[in-house]
Amino acid sequence: MAAANRQIRLVARPGAAGVDVDCFAIEAAERPQPGANELLIRVIYLSIDPAMRGWIAEAPNYRDPVPLGAVMPGFTLGEIVASNHPDFATGELVYGRQGWREWAISDGTDIVRRADPAHGPLPLNLSLLGLTGVTAYLGLMEIGKPKEGETVVVSTAAGAVGSTVGQIAKMLGCHTVGLTGHADKVGLCVSEFGYDAAINYKAVDDLPRTIHNAAPHGVDIYFDNTGGAIADAVVENLNVGARMVICGTIAQPSDPTPEGPRWNRQFLIKRARMEGFLVLDHIERFREAAAQLADWYRDGKINSREEIVDGLENAPEALMRLLRGANHGKMMVRVGPEPLAEPRSGG
Amino acid sequence: MAAANRQIRLVARPGAAGVDVDCFAIEAAERPQPGANELLIRVIYLSIDPAMRGWIAEAPNYRDPVPLGAVMPGFTLGEIVASNHPDFATGELVYGRQGWREWAISDGTDIVRRADPAHGPLPLNLSLLGLTGVTAYLGLMEIGKPKEGETVVVSTAAGAVGSTVGQIAKMLGCHTVGLTGHADKVGLCVSEFGYDAAINYKAVDDLPRTIHNAAPHGVDIYFDNTGGAIADAVVENLNVGARMVICGTIAQPSDPTPEGPRWNRQFLIKRARMEGFLVLDHIERFREAAAQLADWYRDGKINSREEIVDGLENAPEALMRLLRGANHGKMMVRVGPEPLAEPRSGG
Repeated sequence: MAAANRQIRLVARPGAAGVDVDCFAIEAAERPQPGANELLIRVIYLSIDPAMRGWIAEAPNYRDPVPLGAVMPGFTLGEIVASNHPDFATGELVYGRQGWREWAISDGTDIVRRADPAHGPLPLNLSLLGLTGVTAYLGLMEIGKPKEGETVVVSTAAGAVGSTVGQIAKMLGCHTVGLTGHADKVGLCVSEFGYDAAINYKAVDDLPRTIHNAAPHGVDIYFDNTGGAIADAVVENLNVGARMVICGTIAQPSDPTPEGPRWNRQFLIKRARMEGFLVLDHIERFREAAAQLADWYRDGKINSREEIVDGLENAPEALMRLLRGANHGKMMVRVGPEPLAEPRSGG
Repeated sequence: MAAANRQIRLVARPGAAGVDVDCFAIEAAERPQPGANELLIRVIYLSIDPAMRGWIAEAPNYRDPVPLGAVMPGFTLGEIVASNHPDFATGELVYGRQGWREWAISDGTDIVRRADPAHGPLPLNLSLLGLTGVTAYLGLMEIGKPKEGETVVVSTAAGAVGSTVGQIAKMLGCHTVGLTGHADKVGLCVSEFGYDAAINYKAVDDLPRTIHNAAPHGVDIYFDNTGGAIADAVVENLNVGARMVICGTIAQPSDPTPEGPRWNRQFLIKRARMEGFLVLDHIERFREAAAQLADWYRDGKINSREEIVDGLENAPEALMRLLRGANHGKMMVRVGPEPLAEPRSGG
């Protein structure tokens, strides 16, 4: 068992130009062996997420920055290949936080849930059934609280989170408007994710007016993944009692804090609410959320796109591609092959 | 009954310099007579409120601007002096929206509740038991949701709304910090309104740091009446799960929208919530709120300050004084004498 275990460490903070491949270094280590009450996980897929920009930056965040020299953290789908733990068996598939490595030792506390092969293809566990889909589902339901007939606007509408928000809102009977900065994603928003209207915000002169035309009854829910001027344009269109989910700020620098129009008066006049949402506060609901999303997926009510990059060594490049918005679907990395045999179901 | 009825009309919008006495004109009219199902109210006190700045401006607001030429609207305490309405009797005292006039005809729909003389001195109906106190009570309880041991920061802390928020929060076991822009109100905040700490934001170099020192465990609730740089300094100190009540924006121009730091990242990182509160959405709860506040007042748990200006003709000047922050206590105008006889109680 003294085989190789490649892993990727964070070795430098992003500079002014943002995340770069030089922030990371790959190395070969010994493949670890599980001790008492531990298990060995072979990582199959790595989830690459926009939040990683914040995890590795120095700026204040909801967690301490990843220390320089540490293996890059991240959500993974893996297979248990050895277990000294009474609750886990060899062959089980697990969704957890094993990070950017090929093999991981776990005491079970960094496992979020078992992955049920009956839920769909394995990559779905990191897209619709993972951080991404659960963020969309819980953020929309818990803060947005959509009601039939309401208008829901989504930024990064074709992104992994945004496209799921749009589909759930549409399924619940809402009028949905998607905002994207990519001309080639406007059609995708409508054809694949069912938005009633989609806008390339880079291609319009008067974004507030364009949003008004697409949402003539005003905006009841804004699921915001960008912040910045895109959010300003939506805020001008909020209805009385509107809810705004702050899920991401990809269009804003983290540090220093950028300036923009003060929203206080608009939120007062419209008795609107805005609230930050962090899915990691709701780890105990991942299993329930994944089961609901899997039901909708199986019934054909919601679909999911993945962009899968091969090879652990390409994880940094995949992250940069994601942060540029160049991906098409939930970004992930295939670290190793899926199991050949039918794996044991965990349910 | 063809006696005089003085009233004040809005005749000009505020200019760049703000509200001016020339925005208003007083005139003598005929004293009106009630028709079928109407009643005649003699106005005793007028409530002068910061929200009036927004009511008379052209900028978008939660209601259409008061039309030029209209009698200035406002909350009042009055006495029914004649009634053809089955639900109201001569001699009853009523809290309603009779506006800036000495005598008003009503069909009952602009009466919010009866005033109970057992609740305290009559002016209390426009301060602690009126728009002001109910704003503080419902805004704090419904959006702030204070819990014992939490830290509550209030801007315009010595103002009519702010001082009530501070006292209720203190009574509920919160650590309270008051922000004021008037050196002479700092002591008042602590001695009369029970704040644990009070800060003159105009007298400190580093407001975020000063707030941190006064609220070392961070800010759980921010009841904001100002917006602007004062609010920025509090937002830097928000705790995870903080709630911010947007109740007023007196430190910001209404139009054009001013710029300031974008709060998105702070609200995301802290999973904080901000929500606009407008007490007029809750007219059906005024009676219940006034009863609760009257109980606390009678038990000596909360006090109220009023600044009473004599004479309807001085209402414009009273409004300007309020908007300058020069008042000490809830600003109101005495339009006529209180009833000499013990009035009939409405309960």
